[in-house]
Amino acid sequence: MTGRGRFVSFEGIDGSGKSTQARLLAERLQAQGRDVVLTREPGGSPGAEEIRALLLTGAPDRWSAETEILLFTAARRDHLERRIDPALAKGQVVICDRFADSTRVYQGATRGDLRGLVDELHALMIGREPDLTILIDIDPETGWRRATARPGGEARFEEFGAGMQARLRAGFLALAEEAPERFRVIDGRGSEAEVAEAVARAAAEALA
Amino acid sequence: MTGRGRFVSFEGIDGSGKSTQARLLAERLQAQGRDVVLTREPGGSPGAEEIRALLLTGAPDRWSAETEILLFTAARRDHLERRIDPALAKGQVVICDRFADSTRVYQGATRGDLRGLVDELHALMIGREPDLTILIDIDPETGWRRATARPGGEARFEEFGAGMQARLRAGFLALAEEAPERFRVIDGRGSEAEVAEAVARAAAEALA
Ligand SMILES: Nc1ncnc2c1ncn2[C@@H]1O[C@H](COP(=O)(O)OP(=O)(O)O)[C@@H](O)[C@H]1O
Ligand SMILES: Nc1ncnc2c1ncn2[C@@H]1O[C@H](COP(=O)(O)OP(=O)(O)O)[C@@H](O)[C@H]1O
Ligand SMILES: [Mg+2]
Ligand SMILES: [Mg+2]
Repeated sequence: MTGRGRFVSFEGIDGSGKSTQARLLAERLQAQGRDVVLTREPGGSPGAEEIRALLLTGAPDRWSAETEILLFTAARRDHLERRIDPALAKGQVVICDRFADSTRVYQGATRGDLRGLVDELHALMIGREPDLTILIDIDPETGWRRATARPGGEARFEEFGAGMQARLRAGFLALAEEAPERFRVIDGRGSEAEVAEAVARAAAEALA
Repeated sequence: MTGRGRFVSFEGIDGSGKSTQARLLAERLQAQGRDVVLTREPGGSPGAEEIRALLLTGAPDRWSAETEILLFTAARRDHLERRIDPALAKGQVVICDRFADSTRVYQGATRGDLRGLVDELHALMIGREPDLTILIDIDPETGWRRATARPGGEARFEEFGAGMQARLRAGFLALAEEAPERFRVIDGRGSEAEVAEAVARAAAEALA
Protein backbone atom coordinates (compact mmCIF):
# COMPACT_ATOMS: atom_id res chain seq x y z
CA MET A 1 0.00 0.00 0.00
CA THR A 2 2.86 2.46 0.62
CA GLY A 3 4.54 1.80 -2.73
CA ARG A 4 8.30 1.40 -2.60
CA GLY A 5 8.91 4.33 -0.25
CA ARG A 6 8.65 4.67 3.51
CA PHE A 7 6.17 6.76 5.47
CA VAL A 8 7.21 8.18 8.86
CA SER A 9 5.03 10.41 11.07
CA PHE A 10 5.93 12.47 14.13
CA GLU A 11 3.41 12.86 16.93
CA GLY A 12 3.31 14.41 20.39
CA ILE A 13 1.89 17.31 22.37
CA ASP A 14 2.57 20.97 21.59
CA GLY A 15 6.20 21.92 22.15
CA SER A 16 7.39 18.31 22.31
CA GLY A 17 9.75 18.91 19.39
CA LYS A 18 7.94 17.28 16.44
CA SER A 19 8.70 19.99 13.86
CA THR A 20 12.32 20.27 14.99
CA GLN A 21 12.92 16.51 14.90
CA ALA A 22 11.05 15.96 11.63
CA ARG A 23 13.35 18.52 10.01
CA LEU A 24 16.51 17.06 11.59
CA LEU A 25 15.60 13.52 10.48
CA ALA A 26 14.88 14.76 6.95
CA GLU A 27 18.29 16.49 6.83
CA ARG A 28 20.08 13.42 8.17
CA LEU A 29 18.45 11.05 5.66
CA GLN A 30 19.14 13.49 2.83
CA ALA A 31 22.79 13.63 3.86
CA GLN A 32 22.77 9.82 3.55
CA GLY A 33 21.55 10.19 -0.02
CA ARG A 34 17.90 9.34 0.61
CA ASP A 35 15.20 11.11 -1.39
CA VAL A 36 13.05 12.75 1.31
CA VAL A 37 9.74 14.68 1.33
CA LEU A 38 9.11 16.68 4.51
CA THR A 39 5.45 17.59 4.99
CA ARG A 40 2.91 18.34 7.70
CA GLU A 41 -0.73 18.14 8.71
CA PRO A 42 -3.24 19.62 8.62
CA GLY A 43 -2.18 20.75 5.15
CA GLY A 44 0.70 19.48 3.06
CA SER A 45 -0.93 19.89 -0.37
CA PRO A 46 -2.48 23.01 -1.94
CA GLY A 47 -6.07 21.84 -1.38
CA ALA A 48 -5.37 20.60 2.14
CA GLU A 49 -3.73 23.92 3.02
CA GLU A 50 -6.95 25.68 2.03
CA ILE A 51 -8.94 23.36 4.27
CA ARG A 52 -6.36 23.99 7.02
CA ALA A 53 -7.08 27.71 6.75
CA LEU A 54 -10.80 27.00 7.33
CA LEU A 55 -9.89 24.89 10.37
CA LEU A 56 -7.41 27.20 12.02
CA THR A 57 -9.04 30.62 11.55
CA GLY A 58 -12.24 32.06 12.96
CA ALA A 59 -13.99 31.62 16.30
CA PRO A 60 -13.19 28.48 18.35
CA ASP A 61 -16.80 27.28 18.00
CA ARG A 62 -16.90 27.93 14.28
CA TRP A 63 -17.21 24.18 13.58
CA SER A 64 -18.70 21.40 15.67
CA ALA A 65 -16.34 18.56 16.59
CA GLU A 66 -18.03 16.35 13.96
CA THR A 67 -17.67 18.88 11.15
CA GLU A 68 -14.07 19.42 12.20
CA ILE A 69 -13.35 15.69 11.89
CA LEU A 70 -14.82 15.70 8.39
CA LEU A 71 -12.67 18.66 7.38
CA PHE A 72 -9.51 17.08 8.83
CA THR A 73 -10.34 13.87 6.94
CA ALA A 74 -10.94 15.77 3.68
CA ALA A 75 -7.58 17.54 4.09
CA ARG A 76 -5.85 14.23 4.86
CA ARG A 77 -7.38 12.51 1.86
CA ASP A 78 -6.18 15.29 -0.43
CA HIS A 79 -2.72 15.27 1.14
CA LEU A 80 -2.46 11.49 0.72
CA GLU A 81 -3.62 11.46 -2.90
CA ARG A 82 -1.74 14.48 -4.13
CA ARG A 83 1.48 14.37 -2.15
CA ILE A 84 2.14 11.35 0.06
CA ASP A 85 1.10 8.50 -2.26
CA PRO A 86 2.86 9.90 -5.36
CA ALA A 87 6.07 10.32 -3.31
CA LEU A 88 5.87 6.79 -1.90
CA ALA A 89 5.23 5.42 -5.40
CA LYS A 90 8.51 7.05 -6.48
CA GLY A 91 10.32 5.37 -3.61
CA GLN A 92 10.79 8.53 -1.53
CA VAL A 93 10.83 8.70 2.26
CA VAL A 94 7.85 10.81 3.42
CA ILE A 95 8.27 12.47 6.82
CA CYS A 96 5.04 13.95 8.10
CA ASP A 97 4.71 16.33 11.06
CA ARG A 98 1.45 14.98 12.58
CA PHE A 99 -0.90 12.53 10.85
CA ALA A 100 -4.06 10.59 11.77
CA ASP A 101 -2.98 9.91 15.38
CA SER A 102 -3.28 13.63 16.12
CA THR A 103 -6.94 13.55 15.05
CA ARG A 104 -7.56 10.45 17.20
CA VAL A 105 -5.96 12.02 20.25
CA TYR A 106 -7.14 15.64 19.95
CA GLN A 107 -10.76 14.81 19.09
CA GLY A 108 -10.82 12.04 21.67
CA ALA A 109 -9.45 14.35 24.36
CA THR A 110 -12.16 16.91 23.55
CA ARG A 111 -15.02 14.40 23.65
CA GLY A 112 -14.29 10.77 24.41
CA ASP A 113 -17.35 9.55 22.50
CA LEU A 114 -15.85 10.81 19.22
CA ARG A 115 -13.10 8.21 19.02
CA GLY A 116 -15.38 5.65 17.33
CA LEU A 117 -16.41 8.16 14.69
CA VAL A 118 -12.79 9.13 14.02
CA ASP A 119 -11.85 5.47 13.57
CA GLU A 120 -14.77 4.71 11.24
CA LEU A 121 -14.04 7.74 9.06
CA HIS A 122 -10.38 6.80 8.95
CA ALA A 123 -11.19 3.23 7.89
CA LEU A 124 -13.61 4.46 5.22
CA MET A 125 -11.66 7.35 3.70
CA ILE A 126 -7.97 6.98 4.62
CA GLY A 127 -7.28 3.34 5.46
CA ARG A 128 -3.58 3.92 5.86
CA GLU A 129 -1.04 4.12 8.68
CA PRO A 130 2.57 5.26 8.54
CA ASP A 131 5.25 2.55 8.47
CA LEU A 132 6.74 4.21 11.55
CA THR A 133 5.33 6.73 14.01
CA ILE A 134 7.77 8.51 16.27
CA LEU A 135 6.02 9.73 19.41
CA ILE A 136 8.07 12.37 21.17
CA ASP A 137 6.96 12.12 24.76
CA ILE A 138 7.34 15.07 27.08
CA ASP A 139 5.67 16.43 30.20
CA PRO A 140 3.22 19.27 29.46
CA GLU A 141 5.17 21.86 31.45
CA THR A 142 8.37 21.34 29.48
CA GLY A 143 6.38 21.42 26.25
CA TRP A 144 4.73 24.62 27.34
CA ARG A 145 8.04 26.26 28.31
CA ARG A 146 9.47 25.41 24.91
CA ALA A 147 6.40 26.46 22.96
CA THR A 148 6.18 29.83 24.70
CA ALA A 149 9.97 30.19 25.06
CA ARG A 150 9.67 32.20 28.28
CA PRO A 151 9.30 31.16 31.87
CA GLY A 152 5.79 31.74 33.25
CA GLY A 153 3.90 31.33 36.49
CA GLU A 154 1.65 28.45 37.39
CA ALA A 155 -1.47 30.42 36.43
CA ARG A 156 -0.17 31.05 32.94
CA PHE A 157 0.69 27.39 32.48
CA GLU A 158 -2.84 26.50 33.56
CA GLU A 159 -4.30 28.96 31.05
CA PHE A 160 -2.26 27.21 28.34
CA GLY A 161 -4.40 24.17 29.05
CA ALA A 162 -2.29 22.03 31.32
CA GLY A 163 -5.11 19.57 31.95
CA MET A 164 -5.81 19.23 28.24
CA GLN A 165 -2.09 18.73 27.43
CA ALA A 166 -1.92 16.01 30.09
CA ARG A 167 -4.93 14.25 28.52
CA LEU A 168 -3.32 14.54 25.07
CA ARG A 169 -0.07 13.06 26.35
CA ALA A 170 -1.94 10.14 27.91
CA GLY A 171 -3.89 9.69 24.66
CA PHE A 172 -0.72 9.45 22.57
CA LEU A 173 0.86 6.98 24.99
CA ALA A 174 -2.28 4.83 24.90
CA LEU A 175 -2.17 4.73 21.09
CA ALA A 176 1.48 3.69 21.22
CA GLU A 177 0.54 0.80 23.49
CA GLU A 178 -2.24 -0.26 21.12
CA ALA A 179 0.14 -0.41 18.13
CA PRO A 180 3.67 -1.15 19.43
CA GLU A 181 4.82 -2.47 16.03
CA ARG A 182 4.24 0.97 14.46
CA PHE A 183 5.20 3.33 17.31
CA ARG A 184 8.55 4.22 18.78
CA VAL A 185 8.27 6.37 21.92
CA ILE A 186 11.22 8.73 22.35
CA ASP A 187 11.97 10.68 25.52
CA GLY A 188 11.81 14.32 24.40
CA ARG A 189 13.50 15.90 27.42
CA GLY A 190 17.10 15.76 26.13
CA SER A 191 18.81 18.37 23.99
CA GLU A 192 17.82 18.63 20.33
CA ALA A 193 20.92 16.63 19.37
CA GLU A 194 20.25 13.93 21.97
CA VAL A 195 16.66 13.48 20.87
CA ALA A 196 17.79 13.51 17.23
CA GLU A 197 20.17 10.60 17.92
CA ALA A 198 17.37 8.54 19.46
CA VAL A 199 15.07 9.38 16.55
CA ALA A 200 17.75 8.42 14.02
CA ARG A 201 18.29 5.05 15.71
CA ALA A 202 14.54 4.30 15.70
CA ALA A 203 14.26 5.37 12.07
CA ALA A 204 17.28 3.39 10.89
CA GLU A 205 15.79 0.23 12.37
CA ALA A 206 12.40 0.79 10.71
CA LEU A 207 13.68 2.11 7.38
CA ALA A 208 16.31 -0.57 6.83
CA MET B 1 -35.57 13.26 14.77
CA THR B 2 -36.94 16.27 12.85
CA GLY B 3 -38.31 17.97 15.96
CA ARG B 4 -41.77 19.47 15.56
CA GLY B 5 -41.15 21.01 12.12
CA ARG B 6 -41.18 19.55 8.65
CA PHE B 7 -38.24 19.12 6.29
CA VAL B 8 -38.84 19.28 2.51
CA SER B 9 -36.12 18.98 -0.14
CA PHE B 10 -36.25 19.71 -3.88
CA GLU B 11 -34.21 17.60 -6.27
CA GLY B 12 -33.78 17.29 -10.03
CA ILE B 13 -31.34 17.99 -12.84
CA ASP B 14 -30.07 21.44 -13.79
CA GLY B 15 -32.82 23.68 -15.10
CA SER B 16 -35.62 21.44 -13.86
CA GLY B 17 -37.07 24.27 -11.77
CA LYS B 18 -35.93 23.40 -8.25
CA SER B 19 -34.99 26.93 -7.15
CA THR B 20 -38.13 28.42 -8.71
CA GLN B 21 -40.45 25.87 -7.11
CA ALA B 22 -38.72 25.92 -3.72
CA ARG B 23 -39.30 29.68 -3.61
CA LEU B 24 -42.92 29.42 -4.79
CA LEU B 25 -43.71 26.74 -2.18
CA ALA B 26 -42.10 28.84 0.54
CA GLU B 27 -44.19 31.86 -0.48
CA ARG B 28 -47.38 29.80 -0.59
CA LEU B 29 -46.83 28.28 2.85
CA GLN B 30 -45.92 31.66 4.30
CA ALA B 31 -49.15 33.10 2.88
CA GLN B 32 -50.93 30.30 4.75
CA GLY B 33 -49.30 31.52 7.96
CA ARG B 34 -46.60 28.83 8.18
CA ASP B 35 -43.19 29.71 9.56
CA VAL B 36 -40.83 28.80 6.69
CA VAL B 37 -37.03 28.66 6.25
CA LEU B 38 -35.88 28.55 2.62
CA THR B 39 -32.33 27.27 2.24
CA ARG B 40 -30.06 25.48 -0.21
CA GLU B 41 -27.10 23.13 -0.62
CA PRO B 42 -24.22 23.10 -0.88
CA GLY B 43 -24.20 25.94 1.63
CA GLY B 44 -27.08 27.24 3.72
CA SER B 45 -25.08 28.21 6.83
CA PRO B 46 -22.04 30.51 7.10
CA GLY B 47 -19.54 27.66 7.50
CA ALA B 48 -21.17 25.54 4.78
CA GLU B 49 -21.09 28.51 2.39
CA GLU B 50 -17.32 28.73 2.92
CA ILE B 51 -16.97 25.04 2.11
CA ARG B 52 -19.23 25.60 -0.92
CA ALA B 53 -16.77 28.23 -2.16
CA LEU B 54 -13.95 25.65 -1.94
CA LEU B 55 -16.10 23.17 -3.89
CA LEU B 56 -17.33 25.45 -6.64
CA THR B 57 -14.22 27.47 -7.47
CA GLY B 58 -10.88 26.46 -8.98
CA ALA B 59 -9.98 23.86 -11.59
CA PRO B 60 -12.43 20.98 -12.20
CA ASP B 61 -9.85 18.45 -10.97
CA ARG B 62 -9.01 20.47 -7.88
CA TRP B 63 -10.47 17.74 -5.63
CA SER B 64 -10.78 14.02 -6.17
CA ALA B 65 -14.30 12.58 -6.07
CA GLU B 66 -13.60 11.18 -2.58
CA THR B 67 -12.36 14.49 -1.16
CA GLU B 68 -15.36 16.20 -2.74
CA ILE B 69 -17.75 13.82 -0.98
CA LEU B 70 -16.05 14.59 2.34
CA LEU B 71 -16.37 18.32 1.75
CA PHE B 72 -20.04 18.02 0.74
CA THR B 73 -20.65 15.96 3.89
CA ALA B 74 -18.84 18.51 6.08
CA ALA B 75 -20.94 21.31 4.60
CA ARG B 76 -24.15 19.28 5.10
CA ARG B 77 -23.30 18.48 8.70
CA ASP B 78 -22.72 22.18 9.45
CA HIS B 79 -25.93 23.18 7.64
CA LEU B 80 -27.93 20.57 9.58
CA GLU B 81 -26.52 21.52 12.98
CA ARG B 82 -26.54 25.27 12.59
CA ARG B 83 -29.63 25.91 10.48
CA ILE B 84 -31.92 22.96 9.70
CA ASP B 85 -32.14 21.26 13.10
CA PRO B 86 -32.62 24.50 15.08
CA ALA B 87 -35.43 25.51 12.69
CA LEU B 88 -37.13 22.11 12.94
CA ALA B 89 -36.84 22.23 16.73
CA LYS B 90 -38.77 25.53 16.64
CA GLY B 91 -41.50 23.90 14.54
CA GLN B 92 -40.60 25.67 11.29
CA VAL B 93 -40.97 24.21 7.80
CA VAL B 94 -37.51 23.89 6.22
CA ILE B 95 -37.46 23.94 2.41
CA CYS B 96 -34.07 22.96 1.02
CA ASP B 97 -32.98 23.39 -2.61
CA ARG B 98 -31.00 20.12 -3.02
CA PHE B 99 -29.91 17.84 -0.15
CA ALA B 100 -28.24 14.44 0.20
CA ASP B 101 -29.91 12.92 -2.89
CA SER B 102 -27.93 15.31 -5.09
CA THR B 103 -24.68 13.93 -3.65
CA ARG B 104 -25.88 10.35 -4.20
CA VAL B 105 -26.86 11.03 -7.80
CA TYR B 106 -24.05 13.36 -8.92
CA GLN B 107 -21.22 11.34 -7.39
CA GLY B 108 -22.81 8.09 -8.52
CA ALA B 109 -23.18 9.40 -12.07
CA THR B 110 -19.51 10.39 -12.12
CA ARG B 111 -18.25 7.05 -10.82
CA GLY B 112 -20.72 4.28 -10.04
CA ASP B 113 -18.42 2.69 -7.46
CA LEU B 114 -18.75 5.77 -5.20
CA ARG B 115 -22.36 5.19 -4.26
CA GLY B 116 -21.45 2.83 -1.40
CA LEU B 117 -19.04 5.38 0.04
CA VAL B 118 -21.62 8.16 -0.18
CA ASP B 119 -24.17 5.99 1.66
CA GLU B 120 -21.73 4.98 4.40
CA LEU B 121 -20.64 8.57 5.01
CA HIS B 122 -24.27 9.67 5.09
CA ALA B 123 -25.17 6.98 7.63
CA LEU B 124 -22.17 7.87 9.79
CA MET B 125 -22.29 11.69 9.73
CA ILE B 126 -25.78 12.79 8.63
CA GLY B 127 -28.24 9.97 9.31
CA ARG B 128 -31.22 12.04 8.30
CA GLU B 129 -33.64 12.23 5.37
CA PRO B 130 -36.20 14.91 4.59
CA ASP B 131 -39.82 14.17 5.48
CA LEU B 132 -40.66 14.86 1.83
CA THR B 133 -38.49 15.07 -1.29
CA ILE B 134 -40.01 16.66 -4.36
CA LEU B 135 -38.27 15.42 -7.48
CA ILE B 136 -38.97 17.69 -10.44
CA ASP B 137 -38.53 15.43 -13.42
CA ILE B 138 -37.68 16.89 -16.79
CA ASP B 139 -35.93 15.82 -19.97
CA PRO B 140 -32.34 17.13 -20.19
CA GLU B 141 -33.00 19.20 -23.33
CA THR B 142 -35.81 21.19 -21.72
CA GLY B 143 -33.69 21.65 -18.61
CA TRP B 144 -30.82 22.83 -20.74
CA ARG B 145 -32.99 25.30 -22.69
CA ARG B 146 -34.26 26.78 -19.44
CA ALA B 147 -30.86 26.90 -17.76
CA THR B 148 -29.22 28.63 -20.72
CA ALA B 149 -32.38 30.62 -21.67
CA ARG B 150 -31.50 30.61 -25.35
CA PRO B 151 -32.08 28.08 -28.10
CA GLY B 152 -28.91 26.29 -29.18
CA GLY B 153 -27.77 23.71 -31.72
CA GLU B 154 -27.35 20.02 -31.04
CA ALA B 155 -23.59 20.42 -30.62
CA ARG B 156 -24.04 22.99 -27.89
CA PHE B 157 -26.52 20.82 -26.05
CA GLU B 158 -24.03 17.96 -26.23
CA GLU B 159 -21.27 20.19 -24.85
CA PHE B 160 -23.58 21.02 -21.91
CA GLY B 161 -23.31 17.33 -21.03
CA ALA B 162 -26.46 15.78 -22.41
CA GLY B 163 -25.28 12.27 -21.61
CA MET B 164 -24.42 13.25 -18.04
CA GLN B 165 -27.77 14.99 -17.53
CA ALA B 166 -29.56 11.87 -18.80
CA ARG B 167 -27.62 9.74 -16.29
CA LEU B 168 -28.47 12.19 -13.51
CA ARG B 169 -32.15 12.09 -14.42
CA ALA B 170 -32.14 8.29 -14.37
CA GLY B 171 -30.29 8.38 -11.04
CA PHE B 172 -32.91 10.62 -9.42
CA LEU B 173 -35.77 8.47 -10.73
CA ALA B 174 -34.07 5.34 -9.39
CA LEU B 175 -33.78 6.92 -5.91
CA ALA B 176 -37.46 7.84 -6.03
CA GLU B 177 -38.31 4.20 -6.73
CA GLU B 178 -36.12 3.06 -3.84
CA ALA B 179 -37.93 5.36 -1.37
CA PRO B 180 -41.49 5.94 -2.63
CA GLU B 181 -42.75 6.93 0.84
CA ARG B 182 -40.41 9.93 0.88
CA PHE B 183 -40.41 11.01 -2.80
CA ARG B 184 -43.07 12.69 -4.90
CA VAL B 185 -42.12 12.88 -8.60
CA ILE B 186 -43.59 15.93 -10.32
CA ASP B 187 -43.65 16.45 -14.09
CA GLY B 188 -41.62 19.63 -14.61
CA ARG B 189 -42.66 20.37 -18.19
CA GLY B 190 -45.68 22.55 -17.40
CA SER B 191 -45.67 26.29 -16.76
CA GLU B 192 -44.28 27.56 -13.45
CA ALA B 193 -47.82 27.93 -12.13
CA GLU B 194 -48.85 24.44 -13.24
CA VAL B 195 -45.84 22.83 -11.63
CA ALA B 196 -46.39 24.94 -8.51
CA GLU B 197 -49.93 23.55 -8.18
CA ALA B 198 -48.69 19.99 -8.38
CA VAL B 199 -45.96 20.74 -5.83
CA ALA B 200 -48.45 22.37 -3.48
CA ARG B 201 -50.75 19.33 -3.62
CA ALA B 202 -47.86 16.96 -2.88
CA ALA B 203 -46.67 19.17 -0.02
CA ALA B 204 -50.13 19.60 1.52
CA GLU B 205 -50.52 15.84 1.70
CA ALA B 206 -47.14 15.32 3.34
CA LEU B 207 -47.23 18.35 5.65
CA ALA B 208 -50.76 17.81 6.96
N1 LIG C 1 15.18 19.16 22.65
C1 LIG C 1 14.87 20.46 22.77
N2 LIG C 1 15.35 21.18 23.80
C2 LIG C 1 15.03 22.47 23.93
N3 LIG C 1 14.25 23.16 23.08
C3 LIG C 1 13.73 22.47 22.02
C4 LIG C 1 14.02 21.10 21.83
N4 LIG C 1 13.35 20.69 20.70
C5 LIG C 1 12.69 21.76 20.21
N5 LIG C 1 12.94 22.86 21.02
C6 LIG C 1 12.36 24.18 20.85
O1 LIG C 1 11.05 24.13 21.41
C7 LIG C 1 10.14 24.84 20.61
C8 LIG C 1 9.04 23.85 20.15
O2 LIG C 1 9.62 22.86 19.29
P1 LIG C 1 8.86 22.31 18.01
O3 LIG C 1 9.77 21.40 17.28
O4 LIG C 1 8.25 23.43 17.25
O5 LIG C 1 7.69 21.45 18.74
P2 LIG C 1 6.30 20.93 18.17
O6 LIG C 1 6.39 20.95 16.67
O7 LIG C 1 6.16 19.57 18.75
O8 LIG C 1 5.26 21.86 18.73
C9 LIG C 1 10.91 25.43 19.45
O9 LIG C 1 11.22 26.76 19.75
C10 LIG C 1 12.14 24.56 19.40
O10 LIG C 1 13.27 25.26 18.87
N1 LIG D 1 -42.00 25.69 -15.45
C1 LIG D 1 -41.13 26.51 -16.07
N2 LIG D 1 -41.30 26.86 -17.36
C2 LIG D 1 -40.41 27.64 -17.98
N3 LIG D 1 -39.30 28.14 -17.42
C3 LIG D 1 -39.06 27.82 -16.12
C4 LIG D 1 -39.96 26.99 -15.39
N4 LIG D 1 -39.45 26.83 -14.13
C5 LIG D 1 -38.30 27.54 -14.10
N5 LIG D 1 -38.08 28.15 -15.27
C6 LIG D 1 -36.92 28.97 -15.62
O1 LIG D 1 -35.87 28.06 -15.98
C7 LIG D 1 -34.64 28.46 -15.41
C8 LIG D 1 -34.12 27.39 -14.47
O2 LIG D 1 -35.03 27.25 -13.36
P1 LIG D 1 -34.47 27.02 -11.88
O3 LIG D 1 -35.63 27.07 -10.95
O4 LIG D 1 -33.31 27.90 -11.60
O5 LIG D 1 -33.98 25.50 -12.06
P2 LIG D 1 -32.94 24.67 -11.16
O6 LIG D 1 -32.84 25.36 -9.82
O7 LIG D 1 -33.56 23.32 -11.07
O8 LIG D 1 -31.65 24.62 -11.92
C9 LIG D 1 -34.90 29.80 -14.71
O9 LIG D 1 -34.57 30.85 -15.60
C10 LIG D 1 -36.39 29.76 -14.44
O10 LIG D 1 -36.94 31.06 -14.41
MG1 LIG E 1 5.22 21.89 15.22
MG1 LIG F 1 -31.19 26.14 -8.74
